[in-house]
Amino acid sequence: MPRITVLAGGVGGARFTRGLLAELERRHPDPAERPEVTVVVNTGDDMWLNGLRVCPDLDTVMYTLGGGIDEGQGWGRPEESKRTSAEIAAYGRGWPWFTLGDLDLATHIVRSELLRGGATLSEATEVLCRRWTPGACLLPMSDQPVETHVRLAADADEHRSGDLVHFEEWWVRYRASVPASGFEQLGVEGATPAPGVLEAIAQSDVVILPPSNPVVSVGTILGVPGIRDALVTTSARVVGVSPIIGGAAVRGMADQCLRTIGVETSALAVGLHYGSRATGGVLDAWLVDETDAAAVPPLEAAGVSSSAVPLWMRDPASTAALAGAALDHAARV
Amino acid sequence: MPRITVLAGGVGGARFTRGLLAELERRHPDPAERPEVTVVVNTGDDMWLNGLRVCPDLDTVMYTLGGGIDEGQGWGRPEESKRTSAEIAAYGRGWPWFTLGDLDLATHIVRSELLRGGATLSEATEVLCRRWTPGACLLPMSDQPVETHVRLAADADEHRSGDLVHFEEWWVRYRASVPASGFEQLGVEGATPAPGVLEAIAQSDVVILPPSNPVVSVGTILGVPGIRDALVTTSARVVGVSPIIGGAAVRGMADQCLRTIGVETSALAVGLHYGSRATGGVLDAWLVDETDAAAVPPLEAAGVSSSAVPLWMRDPASTAALAGAALDHAARV
Repeated sequence: MPRITVLAGGVGGARFTRGLLAELERRHPDPAERPEVTVVVNTGDDMWLNGLRVCPDLDTVMYTLGGGIDEGQGWGRPEESKRTSAEIAAYGRGWPWFTLGDLDLATHIVRSELLRGGATLSEATEVLCRRWTPGACLLPMSDQPVETHVRLAADADEHRSGDLVHFEEWWVRYRASVPASGFEQLGVEGATPAPGVLEAIAQSDVVILPPSNPVVSVGTILGVPGIRDALVTTSARVVGVSPIIGGAAVRGMADQCLRTIGVETSALAVGLHYGSRATGGVLDAWLVDETDAAAVPPLEAAGVSSSAVPLWMRDPASTAALAGAALDHAARV
Repeated sequence: MPRITVLAGGVGGARFTRGLLAELERRHPDPAERPEVTVVVNTGDDMWLNGLRVCPDLDTVMYTLGGGIDEGQGWGRPEESKRTSAEIAAYGRGWPWFTLGDLDLATHIVRSELLRGGATLSEATEVLCRRWTPGACLLPMSDQPVETHVRLAADADEHRSGDLVHFEEWWVRYRASVPASGFEQLGVEGATPAPGVLEAIAQSDVVILPPSNPVVSVGTILGVPGIRDALVTTSARVVGVSPIIGGAAVRGMADQCLRTIGVETSALAVGLHYGSRATGGVLDAWLVDETDAAAVPPLEAAGVSSSAVPLWMRDPASTAALAGAALDHAARV
């Protein structure tokens, strides 16, 4: 049975994976012959908020694959009420700029109770997925808390240069508009990949880096000791899909993240940042958008097989086609 | 400055206290001359539910005095949504028969976070009350968890004779319809009255037992080591208001509770159950309803000053009048 592993952040990774599952279903109508998909999900955005463990990317992937996502905003559940959040704010508690919807809240309550009862994040995720049946195995990158923090670079409002804030504060509260000097993965030194992560990468035929944020999603996953090495040594073909089209992030604020680590916001630069497995990087192949076709020759020259295909995930059909292109390219490498 | 202490359970105690505060405001328009009121609240119904600390009586008193109560049902907030509870149930977690409204839920989330952060229940209650400004000092009977459990007496559905269940399970799930052989206050041996409880009782001019459940509300408070003794020795006048009118509980299922401890459901029997302070009980006086006027002579004969007054708390005016009658009777003892 062929296996496929995806290293995913939130919205982009979730939508890509949904397209991948649709494409696999189309290509393999018999479920017994359909490749198994494992999604290794970034947990660097996780946080304790009001005593609840919130896992933004795990939930976005779970809801998206399970049919429970708010399609418009890309995260949370459809038509949520903010009444509970407003009540918490009325008590003067929590982060008023980070709102939890009333349906989503139940996920955090159940997960937090499981974690406090001694379950690992992997185990809690499995319990939650029993309800959502996402059609893929969702694994947190690690069962240990590894929380991305942002080192602020410049004075901004009440913050001083050099302050370290949780990634979600920088991302949601400041919309990544406060210059940063770097990212720190608090807790990463003692973290290990969650059970099954290294095995999934080692035993897959194809590993896909979907169009997730290369710094604070895929980059965070690669920062967990052992995961980058697993990508370097796996016999799988590793195919990435550029999250940058025409010099701009498809979604979110990847440009601010790339600027912070000194990488240009371009499909070429991100591909070279990941690098060729032939020279210690993690990529066999890198898909760029048709508008970035000029990036193909220099990528090939750097040892990264590349092709220019339509990258916009406009709808289920175009997303499935993109996933199919990634699979087809992997088969050609 | 005169002081008044009330030992309260949920709805009955909360509504009586609201009437008391209104009556005190009417009698003492100058806030500087108005007696201070302390409400010692039963916490025997408290529980951890889905990792959240739920304190039914504290919240009922806080919401009622703070203007945030659902007047129709007597507990919770008005017009709550049950969507979050339904989501938790969809995960197969929690008690499906115990629903938390979406507004009320915020109170539990904030309290649980405070408790996990090291606050005592007294301190957490004070933080919550900053928002609700209930006009009285709310004290939990104890900062230690003392949870009332019910020893089931007879076979009933999936339960076996002798099982011990949380009070809320017996009360809410079984509507107290499963015969019980007794109540147990788990944790009571090591519990002490919360800071301020004994002082409030000792320094009050009047202590009132409002028409709360004499077994699982007031009885539970009296079970905390030191509180009954404080009532016996205080220089305050201790006045109780019967929760039984015409042989039936004004509200709730007090008759099942009384039956369990072998006390008849009558204003007389409950008054005698509390007993006269002259003979080791806790009452100086006991108010019964006009329909129970026949109970006055035997109560007086037992050393409990008694009078028959209108006990039904039909509206704010009748409730304030009842509180006034309790104060007036205390002044005459």
